[in-house]
Amino acid sequence: MASMSTVFPKPTSFISQPLTKSHKSDSVTTSISFPSNSKTRSLRTISVRAGLIEPDGGKLVDLVVPEPRRREKKHEAADLPRVRLTAIDLQWMHVLSEGWASPLRGFMRESEFLQTLHFNLLNLDDGSVVNMSVPIVLAIDDQQKALIGESKRVSLVDSDDNPIAILNDIEIYKHPKEERIARTWGTTAPGLPYVEEAITNAGDWLIGGDLEVLEPVKYNDGLDRFRLSPFELRKELEKRGADAVFAFQLRNPVHNGHALLMTDTRRRLLEMGYKNPILLLHPLGGFTKADDVPLSWRMKQHEKVLEDGVLDPETTVVSIFPSPMLYAGPTEVQWHAKARINAGANFYIVGRDPAGMGHPVEKRDLYDADHGKKVLSMAPGLERLNILPFRVAAYDKTQGKMAFFDPSRAQDFLFISGTKVNKHFSNQLGHNVTKLKCIQFLIKDLMVVLIDESIGKEQREPTRWIYVPWRLESPCGLLRQFDTNRKHQTSGKDSGLRPIKPFICFCFST
Amino acid sequence: MASMSTVFPKPTSFISQPLTKSHKSDSVTTSISFPSNSKTRSLRTISVRAGLIEPDGGKLVDLVVPEPRRREKKHEAADLPRVRLTAIDLQWMHVLSEGWASPLRGFMRESEFLQTLHFNLLNLDDGSVVNMSVPIVLAIDDQQKALIGESKRVSLVDSDDNPIAILNDIEIYKHPKEERIARTWGTTAPGLPYVEEAITNAGDWLIGGDLEVLEPVKYNDGLDRFRLSPFELRKELEKRGADAVFAFQLRNPVHNGHALLMTDTRRRLLEMGYKNPILLLHPLGGFTKADDVPLSWRMKQHEKVLEDGVLDPETTVVSIFPSPMLYAGPTEVQWHAKARINAGANFYIVGRDPAGMGHPVEKRDLYDADHGKKVLSMAPGLERLNILPFRVAAYDKTQGKMAFFDPSRAQDFLFISGTKVNKHFSNQLGHNVTKLKCIQFLIKDLMVVLIDESIGKEQREPTRWIYVPWRLESPCGLLRQFDTNRKHQTSGKDSGLRPIKPFICFCFST
Repeated sequence: MASMSTVFPKPTSFISQPLTKSHKSDSVTTSISFPSNSKTRSLRTISVRAGLIEPDGGKLVDLVVPEPRRREKKHEAADLPRVRLTAIDLQWMHVLSEGWASPLRGFMRESEFLQTLHFNLLNLDDGSVVNMSVPIVLAIDDQQKALIGESKRVSLVDSDDNPIAILNDIEIYKHPKEERIARTWGTTAPGLPYVEEAITNAGDWLIGGDLEVLEPVKYNDGLDRFRLSPFELRKELEKRGADAVFAFQLRNPVHNGHALLMTDTRRRLLEMGYKNPILLLHPLGGFTKADDVPLSWRMKQHEKVLEDGVLDPETTVVSIFPSPMLYAGPTEVQWHAKARINAGANFYIVGRDPAGMGHPVEKRDLYDADHGKKVLSMAPGLERLNILPFRVAAYDKTQGKMAFFDPSRAQDFLFISGTKVNKHFSNQLGHNVTKLKCIQFLIKDLMVVLIDESIGKEQREPTRWIYVPWRLESPCGLLRQFDTNRKHQTSGKDSGLRPIKPFICFCFST
Repeated sequence: MASMSTVFPKPTSFISQPLTKSHKSDSVTTSISFPSNSKTRSLRTISVRAGLIEPDGGKLVDLVVPEPRRREKKHEAADLPRVRLTAIDLQWMHVLSEGWASPLRGFMRESEFLQTLHFNLLNLDDGSVVNMSVPIVLAIDDQQKALIGESKRVSLVDSDDNPIAILNDIEIYKHPKEERIARTWGTTAPGLPYVEEAITNAGDWLIGGDLEVLEPVKYNDGLDRFRLSPFELRKELEKRGADAVFAFQLRNPVHNGHALLMTDTRRRLLEMGYKNPILLLHPLGGFTKADDVPLSWRMKQHEKVLEDGVLDPETTVVSIFPSPMLYAGPTEVQWHAKARINAGANFYIVGRDPAGMGHPVEKRDLYDADHGKKVLSMAPGLERLNILPFRVAAYDKTQGKMAFFDPSRAQDFLFISGTKVNKHFSNQLGHNVTKLKCIQFLIKDLMVVLIDESIGKEQREPTRWIYVPWRLESPCGLLRQFDTNRKHQTSGKDSGLRPIKPFICFCFST
């Protein structure tokens, strides 16, 4: 961490809620057990030494069938009516199976669905509530419903028709798509990525029930080693002796502002008296929209960040959060926070406009940038979580480093945003450039930029992502250099530069 | 009540939640006081002998300036920036002023608005929550916002620019119309009556603050005597010695199914051991959509129901609930229930598809008919209220009377719905009739039907509502009779009947 102090100067103030030490994180040893009060529930008992925050509902749900019973369950599954899962259904099954949505034990029945839609919570039998803001539901169509008939159980199968889970004590109810969309996203405008991918063409029925997952979910994409379950994360956090865990959700590469914030949060927690605060750097691994950076490239970047010492590997756990991304702003940020409680986090860093995006039809952001933070701070069931609002960082020209923005000397700070990059290149090229974005990550005074070579080809996966060192002073040079190495249509303009549209470099406002 | 037993036979079963006696309604004497912990709050202290359920937040809010201070407050109001209220704004001000929305003390600030939109509740300082499902907000436009400038107070004025209230410690924030509509109605389809009346053309800002209302709200329409405040209702209910209060919200005339249900509920409460259950027959008095029956006619009908002994005047309180109607289904029914807690009700009868309506664009109901009841039973902050689901009643041909529907002898029951009436007349007339509805009210074996003579004229108020006795056996005769008394375009068909479109007779499915 020694080298960090030169890169990330000590901030003078911390705009956030008071960082009072939560009583809930006091060290206690508890035993978390999974009672077998239902035929469908796992029999195992897991002991968790919990200096960590208690999971929602007091018990971490684990819906994977224990090894000795898998063979028998697979036989049972083979004879049941089948429901084939989409890629996103599978991601939700993964989420449920590992207890990210504890105490939820399967795809929602109507009562859970309605409580989620209307109140963003679930009432528990003991009179307490847990937060639950996004519907975790499974849609089926008329034909599937007819095939299920009077059966009380179904097997869930993958794209090759292999049974991967059993859904027990099922309940089939109407899928009120319009209402689900309106109440989850606060809009029904066409063009919401998750809605188009997973709801618009989904069936008109929802099927809920208790899940038994036949094997732990694996994707075999080389990243499974990063997919720690809440139980595994808790074990790792305890192994490291964490007495505070601060989670950072992200769906794009870490940039310099993030890094400053995370390092500074640890420093503040130490000042408060915590002995060993651990950062849970927790990229989202499920469905994301087409113009977000793919998981594989993000993970490479996150590894590089640790390798280069920008974040300290000793006090950072990098793991993949298996949830799909809804882009549902204030509603979704509650889910992101709640799931991290189940993974052991008692501090949550919330950004400006979390889980937000541009309105799909109107020329504005879909959500008020401050609503996410406000809604999160008032959300039922999240009272135990300490919310840390994001601080704005920018390049401090006087120090030649990233620093938290100080409005009293605004002129000293340089914000590098997509808009600015577009304007810069529009001026350089003599024609209007509006689609440039870039992801920047600062190491010393160099930015590392990811460039997607496939842009313009309308395909989901980029052909290649490239790290490029980019000096703040000469962003244009970079693109020119790339441009001359490739063949493109030349523009009509005699600017000496070829058109740059085929490139997009993503640039987050820090 | 003696004559009732012949009209309303004793039902054999009661499909509802168990009618356990609520502990919360045990007789205790409490003092409800209004502390003067803010300059803007009323100083009065009101003592309520409360065998009745406690109001939300423990104290009934009263925002009307006490008589001795009105003169002074009116002077203050005269010098403040002005916000002119619409008719619906005025209805909400009325609602707030009398404490129907207790503990809310004025139009919502952003924090209250967000909690309402996302969670249908308000967090109180003591850690408890109260239900609050519909935004009670005041919209202003850019111009009004500019006029208010830096002022921390505004006066609210009526359509003649007379100050009627002061809003203190104001907060102005963005009016996210689309999100408000989506999260309140679960749709953004065009044609929602309240949205078109009160949101679409409203300003882009919301102004919240603490209300001081300069005079009790009066409408001078001959019905003010029915407009009892929650405080007055509690006094009346206590005067009558109520030990249980069951509220019935309605926005249309009482029909025979309602009457049977209300009478039967009282009988059941007596059986449970309550000594004096009182019915709060509580028609909604604010904005309703154009094809609902106007308040004045509904009040006439309600009076007639008591006069004719269908409901017992000794055990029934008829009063007007001043809220506007949103037609927001499961979201709104919570508001209807919560407001009645504040008026002293501890039992609430909930109908099929409460506060629902047809989808404004698609050919279906906007809400699942069962969702209202389900959502109400799970709503945070309403745990103290006993929810009584509506039972289906129909005309029992074997008894020649209305009775609760018994599915084991379905063939004995006659349901008279709008659809059936339409089908009947379509057959009779030889052309498709789809717009007939009727309101029926049964006294002995005669139905009393309300017919609006203005239908087809596209005007808000009907020219005249007529009671017509209508024998079950000859519904067509009625319309023929009316038709021959009026001039209409004749249809091309030689049916012997004139077209009946100019009439609508409203018919509720019992």
